[in-house]
Parts: sequence; structure tokens; C-alpha cells
Amino acid sequence: MDLKSKIRIIENFPKEGISFKDITTLTKDGDVFKYVVKKMADNLRDKNLDYIVGPEARGFIFGAAVAYELGIGFIQIRKKGKLPGEVKEVKYDLEYGSNTLEIHVDAIEEGKRVAIVDDLLATGGTVSAASELIENSFQAKVVAMEFLIELESLKGRNKLEGCEVNSLVKYII
Amino acid sequence: MDLKSKIRIIENFPKEGISFKDITTLTKDGDVFKYVVKKMADNLRDKNLDYIVGPEARGFIFGAAVAYELGIGFIQIRKKGKLPGEVKEVKYDLEYGSNTLEIHVDAIEEGKRVAIVDDLLATGGTVSAASELIENSFQAKVVAMEFLIELESLKGRNKLEGCEVNSLVKYII
Repeated sequence: MDLKSKIRIIENFPKEGISFKDITTLTKDGDVFKYVVKKMADNLRDKNLDYIVGPEARGFIFGAAVAYELGIGFIQIRKKGKLPGEVKEVKYDLEYGSNTLEIHVDAIEEGKRVAIVDDLLATGGTVSAASELIENSFQAKVVAMEFLIELESLKGRNKLEGCEVNSLVKYII
Repeated sequence: MDLKSKIRIIENFPKEGISFKDITTLTKDGDVFKYVVKKMADNLRDKNLDYIVGPEARGFIFGAAVAYELGIGFIQIRKKGKLPGEVKEVKYDLEYGSNTLEIHVDAIEEGKRVAIVDDLLATGGTVSAASELIENSFQAKVVAMEFLIELESLKGRNKLEGCEVNSLVKYII
């Protein structure tokens, strides 16, 4: 399936110089959305996973649907202050400034096997922080990561050693 | 299935006096998450829908999985400034201040039939604004709304006339 033709490029969002990959045009096509979720789930099906973890907010779209297809639980990673219960957090650097991700302290049990699902692998900053948060907080194992889109020239994949990393659509940038 | 036992109550979040219904404990149970999504989808299956619309962020979790189960497209409604393309917006009043919801100008075509899926029906402010945004912007029809939780004493349902409204778990408040 030609997934690239379903992804819309929007120039200069969220800031000048960025070619934003808009996935709203992909998810509104029911057949294509189904294909993508099924494909991600198929990559994870034999991995004996306990949970899918999705980072806010677009990670919720693909992550929840993949968890549903696999019949396993879905766990949220959110930005600071959004989760209602007691949280563990990780802070990570952005190009300018920093960001904080949170997960509930009782989200995952020791020894569980999880996969992270998100729409986009860019620099890998968010997802490597998410992975660190999961592995350090719970002694759980991030077995795999599934992305719809990978921006290859940003080399985010290099930050994600020690687990399988898959993406369905690759762009140079 | 006893869904209430899977929802955690967190007192005084996001502010003093609110008994927050935490759905992270429900979605982390794969069987229960599957049951909920299936149930919502079953309520919508015979309605000849074109799209599921989910409001950010927890609406993405249930909405995307329901869209996947039904094999139809998923469309995001987001807070101001999050969607990359040109948007239509609706502003609505909160208890203190106001909020703005946005949807892409080309998200939905005239005459399409959609359902809104979200985790919670409280006062109905968000979802009635979302419905107004969809019907006024696109001449589309909001046929039904599906919620996991309804806070009955807040009478949100009274704001949602003209479409079917279902919820799986009811609390007084």
C-alpha cells in the first residue's frame, strides 16, 4: 500500500523550516488506518507482550488500536500534570529547553514486556526518554518500538539500541 | 462485566472537590479494554457511519480503537494550535474562562455520518461544542455519541439532543 500518498506534508509547522508529516489524512481513510494498525500489530504479535505504551497524543491513536488488535492493555505516557495519580517522571532535552514525560507509578509491573507505539520517529528524544522511564521505573523490558513514520536523516534510531525498531514509511527528513 | 471496579477514583484532581475517574486502570487490562471498545462499536455498527471523531486526548484512545474495529476513518478534534493544517474552530465556556476546539477544514465531507467517542460525559460542554463544530462546519450529521463514563447529576445529556447518547458506566457524580 502506498502510505506516503496518504500522508500530507505541511510546510513550516510547528515552526519555520519544518516539513510536518500530517497523519490526519491517513487515519481518516478507514482501510488505510486498518492496514497500518494491523501491520504494526503483526510486527509485535510473536513478542509475548504484556502492554502497549503510547505517548500523548498521537501515540494514543495508533497505540490504543494496536493494543486492541493484540488484546493486551494500553498504557499512557503523558506530558507533565496530565495524569491524575502519583507519577514517575523523566526530563529530557529539546533543541531549545526541555520536556517532561510522566507515567503512573503503578502502570507496569516488574518483568513485564512492553512495546512503545507512536506516529513518528524523529530525533528519538521523546521515545528514548519514554523507554528509559519504563525500564528504570519498573524493571520492565521495552522489547520493540513501532512507528508509522521515520525521518531517517535525524538518526533517531541510533538512540534506541537494545530493542527492535520498525517504521512503515521512511522520509529523508 | 463490572467496569466500575476497573475505574480508579482519584480525589481532588485536577482540583479540590473533584472525584476524578481514572481510566488508566481500565485500559491496562487487555480483556476489559477489548470489551469496552467492542461494546461501543456494537452500539454504532448498524448506523452506517463514515467516521469516528475523537476529542483530544483520551477520546483518541477509545475513538481510534472503535474506528479500527468498525473499519472506518478516525478524525481528531484538538485543542487550539495542535493541528498542522487550516482549521475551523469553536469556542465554548468553561466554569471559569473558555476553551477552543479545532478541526481541519477538510476533515469531513458534506452529508457524512459521524459518531463522537470520548471517555467521559460530564457537563457536556466539550462534546456539544464538538458536535456544533462538526455540523456547522461541514453539513455533516452527528448520529451518535459513545462514552465510557457518564456523570449523571451533571445532566450533560440534556445538551445533546438530536442524537443517540450511550454510556457504559454511570456515576451520580
